[in-house]
Amino acid sequence: LIPHVLLITSPDQPGLIHTVTGIIASRQLNIVANGEFVDPVTGGFFMRTEFVGGSGPADLVLELRKALPAGADVRIVPQHPKNIIIFGSKEPHCVADLLVRQANAEIDFNIQCVISNHPVLEPLAARFNIPFFHVPAAESEDRTAHESRLISVIERYRPDYLVLAKYMRVLTPQFVDRFCGKIINIHHSFLPAFAGAQPYRQAYERGVKIIGATAHFVTEALDEGPIIAQSVIPVTHAHTAKSMAQEGREIEKIVLAQALKLVIEDRVFVSGNKTIIFD
Amino acid sequence: LIPHVLLITSPDQPGLIHTVTGIIASRQLNIVANGEFVDPVTGGFFMRTEFVGGSGPADLVLELRKALPAGADVRIVPQHPKNIIIFGSKEPHCVADLLVRQANAEIDFNIQCVISNHPVLEPLAARFNIPFFHVPAAESEDRTAHESRLISVIERYRPDYLVLAKYMRVLTPQFVDRFCGKIINIHHSFLPAFAGAQPYRQAYERGVKIIGATAHFVTEALDEGPIIAQSVIPVTHAHTAKSMAQEGREIEKIVLAQALKLVIEDRVFVSGNKTIIFD
Amino acid sequence: LIPHVLLITSPDQPGLIHTVTGIIASRQLNIVANGEFVDPVTGGFFMRTEFVGGSGPADLVLELRKALPAGADVRIVPQHPKNIIIFGSKEPHCVADLLVRQANAEIDFNIQCVISNHPVLEPLAARFNIPFFHVPAAESEDRTAHESRLISVIERYRPDYLVLAKYMRVLTPQFVDRFCGKIINIHHSFLPAFAGAQPYRQAYERGVKIIGATAHFVTEALDEGPIIAQSVIPVTHAHTAKSMAQEGREIEKIVLAQALKLVIEDRVFVSGNKTIIFD
Amino acid sequence: LIPHVLLITSPDQPGLIHTVTGIIASRQLNIVANGEFVDPVTGGFFMRTEFVGGSGPADLVLELRKALPAGADVRIVPQHPKNIIIFGSKEPHCVADLLVRQANAEIDFNIQCVISNHPVLEPLAARFNIPFFHVPAAESEDRTAHESRLISVIERYRPDYLVLAKYMRVLTPQFVDRFCGKIINIHHSFLPAFAGAQPYRQAYERGVKIIGATAHFVTEALDEGPIIAQSVIPVTHAHTAKSMAQEGREIEKIVLAQALKLVIEDRVFVSGNKTIIFD
Repeated sequence: LIPHVLLITSPDQPGLIHTVTGIIASRQLNIVANGEFVDPVTGGFFMRTEFVGGSGPADLVLELRKALPAGADVRIVPQHPKNIIIFGSKEPHCVADLLVRQANAEIDFNIQCVISNHPVLEPLAARFNIPFFHVPAAESEDRTAHESRLISVIERYRPDYLVLAKYMRVLTPQFVDRFCGKIINIHHSFLPAFAGAQPYRQAYERGVKIIGATAHFVTEALDEGPIIAQSVIPVTHAHTAKSMAQEGREIEKIVLAQALKLVIEDRVFVSGNKTIIFD
Repeated sequence: LIPHVLLITSPDQPGLIHTVTGIIASRQLNIVANGEFVDPVTGGFFMRTEFVGGSGPADLVLELRKALPAGADVRIVPQHPKNIIIFGSKEPHCVADLLVRQANAEIDFNIQCVISNHPVLEPLAARFNIPFFHVPAAESEDRTAHESRLISVIERYRPDYLVLAKYMRVLTPQFVDRFCGKIINIHHSFLPAFAGAQPYRQAYERGVKIIGATAHFVTEALDEGPIIAQSVIPVTHAHTAKSMAQEGREIEKIVLAQALKLVIEDRVFVSGNKTIIFD
Repeated sequence: LIPHVLLITSPDQPGLIHTVTGIIASRQLNIVANGEFVDPVTGGFFMRTEFVGGSGPADLVLELRKALPAGADVRIVPQHPKNIIIFGSKEPHCVADLLVRQANAEIDFNIQCVISNHPVLEPLAARFNIPFFHVPAAESEDRTAHESRLISVIERYRPDYLVLAKYMRVLTPQFVDRFCGKIINIHHSFLPAFAGAQPYRQAYERGVKIIGATAHFVTEALDEGPIIAQSVIPVTHAHTAKSMAQEGREIEKIVLAQALKLVIEDRVFVSGNKTIIFD
Repeated sequence: LIPHVLLITSPDQPGLIHTVTGIIASRQLNIVANGEFVDPVTGGFFMRTEFVGGSGPADLVLELRKALPAGADVRIVPQHPKNIIIFGSKEPHCVADLLVRQANAEIDFNIQCVISNHPVLEPLAARFNIPFFHVPAAESEDRTAHESRLISVIERYRPDYLVLAKYMRVLTPQFVDRFCGKIINIHHSFLPAFAGAQPYRQAYERGVKIIGATAHFVTEALDEGPIIAQSVIPVTHAHTAKSMAQEGREIEKIVLAQALKLVIEDRVFVSGNKTIIFD
């Protein structure tokens, strides 16, 4: 029996957990996992509940909305794997990692296609029988024109999430806005350190002893969206920018997969520019 | 306002969270932190709730007990710092770490005294004006005789916990039994690897690439009690048993302090030979 | 210009580095990386030197042998990628990881084939156009009979290393002996903790707060060969044996790849039951 | 027998190791540890050698200088513990950690005194019988005036290193210049992220999932000197800026102690704005 996932965001007030658990209990639904968080600064209340049992969730959402404070957001997640489109460029490691995870049934998502501005990853996608779209970006072309061709592919699939797996192009605010809250990026640094281009080069120049990777939702401000997951590895003076990049790839793919797993299991709330994660 | 901490262990059944939060809400108490866990194997339900507000906790415990299934254990923790006695031997690092943490008000405990079978830590305790008891153990003496002298010191203080901070002697089952669930030990290995004597020597001989430390409750079975916290650090072929021991001390003191903080904040439930920790 | 790798093991005596670097310098070879280690317990001297430049390495080996103490072992590694055969069973993650790394040119090895006692990984190998041999092991069959069929496949390829990528069968001493120093295994625990079968089940039962993986050379003593690499991840009371296994797979594949990279780059000396690693 | 430590910085050229080890061998000195590094970008050669044996090091330095390329820097470190002065402010944890390490003989340095702009750490220094100088900084006073009083204390002791153990004041370029290469600071973030004031507040606002600490040499550019050591710990949405600061203190003191140990054991070369570390 796959549990239903109930997600609640609400202004906090005493008794919310009691109210929610009461409505669930009254329907003979059984809670199998539960997490709550009250943000002491914003006063926001966040609750994620997994339950099993019979009665109709749609009806349940209505009852919960009535019982909760004005402004509460109540949602029961549809019980099917999330659809994702992977955006790649030339580097294969993150794209390959996600393709393998689907093939091995390690994460429960459905990769609809891979889109790239370079053709080099096509054979990789082909190994896993995943459609590949080469959408080249001419230097002379403006971003909007390129993105309109991306959008025409996206529209064919209507994915739940767009996953930027080392897609090295900056997206326009219009594009980001259109897929607001649905774009996940892996940045090859421990943000906010080394935002922007060539983070390993920057890390090498600065002489840091640790490098990192950051998975985040994409917002209009480049590399400044809500952070989902981060990880780091040690480096020494003997690393070059190139060897940092090589070793960094190991954590890039892990952090992206971790973040994506959290997102598609509906464990991530976005609150302002932060994430609240029930894992 | 310091929150009250409510601890519940109970056989699981649907609606327990609703029941507990309802009783709390009915008294206009406000929950500020909450954690629950149902063990899928044992069917045990564990709940730790922090609440603030007026009415008498004693009365609350009675009401909760009535409302919960038979066999439920309900407890509200007294609101004062835990008293501890530190047992040391010759090595100063763990003892010093705890003395400093009290002096710096980093952990909210009260060190009543330090007891050791060697006199060498006496000046350290004196720096922090903590009573020191040298209770030597003659080689000819049996353990019970030595422990009876330890007990006479312990009885003067009636501590909440006995903290074995690199106390290198094995305790008798009688002693362990007498202070059951109240003795915390730091073992200088990543248990269950290298239980028993000279774990760094064993680690060196085995050629491991990582060494660790384990804080656990002491039970009659040596080094087999419920684990509270563990941590590790990398080592290489260039480490000797001695340099492993030197670097290992860094994590020994950290792991012991982490575990002790969890215990004195009443975040640790013991269930069989495992711990359930709400942090 | 790919550097030559010179590997020296010798009884230690004063002046060895001077002797070796002198012979290299006299041939106008240029050292680009260098590591030495003297084991203070065994008195063994280990040196790994990367050099570039013209004169013939074979001749160099002879000169070095003459100049070094009796018992010294001198070797210059052939400059071609190592050949490996992967042994799998049912679990795909480690096998897939190595196949992807070859496809992405992340590690410089040549996977000659995949051998498994189960057919389930055949489609995975096929995605990467790697020969797959299903060598089933009948329950009634003795190990030697099964291994003789493995050996007939191995003999066709004559690999440098056999990589046990979650191959779940115990090998006979005869097999291990035949491929002595050439078999690398990934064990799904932080050895020596939880050797033998079902380590995640054992870890769950013990209630550890950290789980790990260990890559090691295979010797006749099960799970006791020289350790090459280890890594760990934290777990909590909320993990089941099954979820430990799921998360453990993440480090299993990383640790195996790390170890294999070290081995095929000739960075690993074996000394007794330990490894000395120049990374 | 405590080894001598030989430190060489030189423009690289073939045969340097051979030259150096030859001169050492010719004097019947025995190398017990050795590390070299050639920076592929700058062409700088760095060598750290520990040797034991009889003949006079002063003479050895002269012979090495003659044999090495123009511009080479050769130094044999005096064989006595380094003298340090600790600068504190109000927070006790880093200062206490260093005092305890000296008392426990964990690091081989000699703390000459503690200087602070606040009186609050005086009792802590007194516990360890270390002189304490309260040098208050009036708000109206300019920095140079305050620093001249600091300097008058420093001059009495002539320390090898000044250790800023959460000393929260910015030093003038004149002060930094005067003690160039001798000032070590602990910054409470994973630099270059969150440089400047209130890094935990910044980290909280940004919603990072990892926080860190950085020990570095102080240069005129605030928080931009050569990094010696860094470490990180995970945080979640449930952390406040205050609880980040509390947990961050644990790594601040560890990173500072690690860095200081490396520096006083003469394992750290500074090259441009980076460190080269032989550990």
